[in-house]
Amino acid sequence: MTTKKTTEHLPFGEKRDPRFFGEDILSVRQFDRGRLGTLFAVAGEMRGMVERVGTFDLLKGKVLTNLFYEPSTRTSSSFVAAIERLGGSVVQINNVTYSSVSKGESLPDTVRTLESYSDAIVLRHPEKGAAAEAAAAARKPIINAGDGPGEHPTQALLDAYTIVEEMGALDGLTVTMLGDLKHGRTVHSLARLLALYNTKINYVSPESLAMPPELVAEIDEAGVGQMHTADLGAVLADTDVLYVTRIQKERFESPADYDAVSGSYVITGETISRAKANMIVMHPLPRVGEIAEEVDSDPRAAYFRQMEYGMYVRMALLALVLGRA
Amino acid sequence: MTTKKTTEHLPFGEKRDPRFFGEDILSVRQFDRGRLGTLFAVAGEMRGMVERVGTFDLLKGKVLTNLFYEPSTRTSSSFVAAIERLGGSVVQINNVTYSSVSKGESLPDTVRTLESYSDAIVLRHPEKGAAAEAAAAARKPIINAGDGPGEHPTQALLDAYTIVEEMGALDGLTVTMLGDLKHGRTVHSLARLLALYNTKINYVSPESLAMPPELVAEIDEAGVGQMHTADLGAVLADTDVLYVTRIQKERFESPADYDAVSGSYVITGETISRAKANMIVMHPLPRVGEIAEEVDSDPRAAYFRQMEYGMYVRMALLALVLGRA
Amino acid sequence: MTTKKTTEHLPFGEKRDPRFFGEDILSVRQFDRGRLGTLFAVAGEMRGMVERVGTFDLLKGKVLTNLFYEPSTRTSSSFVAAIERLGGSVVQINNVTYSSVSKGESLPDTVRTLESYSDAIVLRHPEKGAAAEAAAAARKPIINAGDGPGEHPTQALLDAYTIVEEMGALDGLTVTMLGDLKHGRTVHSLARLLALYNTKINYVSPESLAMPPELVAEIDEAGVGQMHTADLGAVLADTDVLYVTRIQKERFESPADYDAVSGSYVITGETISRAKANMIVMHPLPRVGEIAEEVDSDPRAAYFRQMEYGMYVRMALLALVLGRA
Repeated sequence: MTTKKTTEHLPFGEKRDPRFFGEDILSVRQFDRGRLGTLFAVAGEMRGMVERVGTFDLLKGKVLTNLFYEPSTRTSSSFVAAIERLGGSVVQINNVTYSSVSKGESLPDTVRTLESYSDAIVLRHPEKGAAAEAAAAARKPIINAGDGPGEHPTQALLDAYTIVEEMGALDGLTVTMLGDLKHGRTVHSLARLLALYNTKINYVSPESLAMPPELVAEIDEAGVGQMHTADLGAVLADTDVLYVTRIQKERFESPADYDAVSGSYVITGETISRAKANMIVMHPLPRVGEIAEEVDSDPRAAYFRQMEYGMYVRMALLALVLGRA
Repeated sequence: MTTKKTTEHLPFGEKRDPRFFGEDILSVRQFDRGRLGTLFAVAGEMRGMVERVGTFDLLKGKVLTNLFYEPSTRTSSSFVAAIERLGGSVVQINNVTYSSVSKGESLPDTVRTLESYSDAIVLRHPEKGAAAEAAAAARKPIINAGDGPGEHPTQALLDAYTIVEEMGALDGLTVTMLGDLKHGRTVHSLARLLALYNTKINYVSPESLAMPPELVAEIDEAGVGQMHTADLGAVLADTDVLYVTRIQKERFESPADYDAVSGSYVITGETISRAKANMIVMHPLPRVGEIAEEVDSDPRAAYFRQMEYGMYVRMALLALVLGRA
Repeated sequence: MTTKKTTEHLPFGEKRDPRFFGEDILSVRQFDRGRLGTLFAVAGEMRGMVERVGTFDLLKGKVLTNLFYEPSTRTSSSFVAAIERLGGSVVQINNVTYSSVSKGESLPDTVRTLESYSDAIVLRHPEKGAAAEAAAAARKPIINAGDGPGEHPTQALLDAYTIVEEMGALDGLTVTMLGDLKHGRTVHSLARLLALYNTKINYVSPESLAMPPELVAEIDEAGVGQMHTADLGAVLADTDVLYVTRIQKERFESPADYDAVSGSYVITGETISRAKANMIVMHPLPRVGEIAEEVDSDPRAAYFRQMEYGMYVRMALLALVLGRA
């Protein structure tokens, strides 16, 4: 195999190759405005090529291993389609816990074996820090597709790219995040990316599910305006991007506590009738009742387009870390 | 994505594009003689190309999602090989019930997500009507690979194509169906296709497992001769195509009832010694004792060739709905 | 399909096509020095091509079915990467026991169905003799990827190829096998291959887990020097290749028996400090404590390179049996 990591694993924040060649993608903290600009530009090129020809041979010669220790059909399928549309191939490994790979074998050993066959590894693992552990062992790039309560950086990157494609830019926007903001890995990472831009963030949740104070403090330091409210109505009219997430019943102390708030966070046709004409509604999916189906036909409903943008972002990441973008 | 459905979903029987572009394949009722002729001609071209070069780039640029809510290795593998031999790629999704896609997500949402990555979706689902529900939500073509007690149209289409390839034509043939004709989704759909041709159909089963009267009436209306008997010997000598299906023990009221008939419906070397020299024996497989292994080496045993024809029919369907045939 | 087996299935030892076209790969007994030389030469070409271009179109047009009745992620992934790097496609079938293929269907029927779609079948099965049974039924080549307590020939072939690549040749080497030599399918097959060369084999194990006497007798007949000892120290200094395998606790009569020997068979930095400077340490993986992680960074640690050589050997086998090498 000729692909080698060309940069040592750097602490977050240090100078990096702006084009990511040979790099692991572990955290949104690896990205600044310049690198996001590169990523989004390449993702835009990927979109154009897919629309014109469907697949193309940019990564012909490359084999990706999709190593999933827990199921995530959405993320896994998106990466499979991404590498295939780039002319590469995939070794798909599902449900590792049932297979011989996991028979007492350490994650580093599994990764060192699989990189013998492939040029990069996408890793989904239930434990925080698993992606970093894999990256430390591997010669080939590791892309974190979710490490339990840790990060899921490609989700936040596709969220940010969706906003850029739909709204034209991130600067100047008011983004409202709705739902369980305490436990939502997705909104935490997205907030960190928004903090790189001239944005304003509204948090809408019950007090008990508010954004963690340390994250609010971190984003405050970046000079981004933030506001918390329990009432969507207070911020809806000014919202450019409404980012809806699940509120899981099991997070509440009692079913009554849940029932008290859940209904008020369901987006309906009536809700968006009070929103801007050119705003968008996003959701990481799957949704389970947070957005009524009647909203789907509204052009502001961006959540299915968001899935498609996700494929373009993953294509761009693969092309970049494999040195072909 | 540039592939869009170009025809609205039409009620069965209405005029359609004879070349299927952008169409969902949900039911054998979508097919008339003209459309079957197109399908079989394209399937024949696929066979010729596979025999000459193995794979070719007719669907290069296309990604197929194989979405299986229940296992069906035979059907799934056939579609995977079909898209690969056409130069396309596949996103394989098995055992959806164990995966995050199904975590309370509706089928329409799952389908709308997966069509973001792909150009068509093959769907296997345990519930009747699932394929139609998916098709109503999707912009990309849906191919029904079995919706529980509903339909499994590609099975019937490959059965009909097998007869054409083996016997030269459908018109003029006597087809004998054997086994559990009451519950057999396969024979019901095949009978509907045979009714489009100048055929004669014999049904051989115990009275309790006879063809449903409403289906017999429907086929009678088409002017096709039908006959029911419990005795294969009564019709064997005139049979051009013997279509054997399973009799499942659990369908009977008592084990004794089962034992009384099961033996008489096992095809042996002795059975086919009484059949025409140029007839064929078919079976949708898997078989579990309905045809003795000694029959396999007889040139009239067409059931393994039937599997291969199935791949050509699925290649033809994919090429047609994706507008490349 | 145009690919046909061109040679009848020959008893082991009979003259065969030196280039394997159309042949089943069931056992290491199919290989002599000439055929191994061919295999290793082609594997070396595969390595060169992968290093230069990653993938190439030698098997474009070919579809491989990977039929795994029991999980073996390592072997399965290696074959998937192998066919993909050769420009071919794969139909992956995992966990057959949960799928419809296995619903009472015989292995020959399953194989005859799947060969309708593909050009060769890689079979992993828990029962000894399954690969031979499949090969007897199939028209297309069957490659045995492990049939329970039977053989796993591609493992032994990649082991031998690793030694050739790392040490330059097999002749003249002293190979020391360590661990459970009684039950180890891997070391049995490797010993048979070593017996074709001018080698010396040391067996290091507790008496209760020694190499089976009938195998020792077979290898003795080939004129190869063999020695058994329970003490690695007695042979370490003369060892060119140290082949380490697992000792499974459950093989022992009592935990105390296990504890008495297990520690002395763990390879550490101290162990290899007493070994030759240019020897290598091999392991079929996964390891569970038999080799300390501190050994991994030693250039003599060859076990991860061994995985990569495995892919080249499998590429070579596929190219040979499909007539493109």
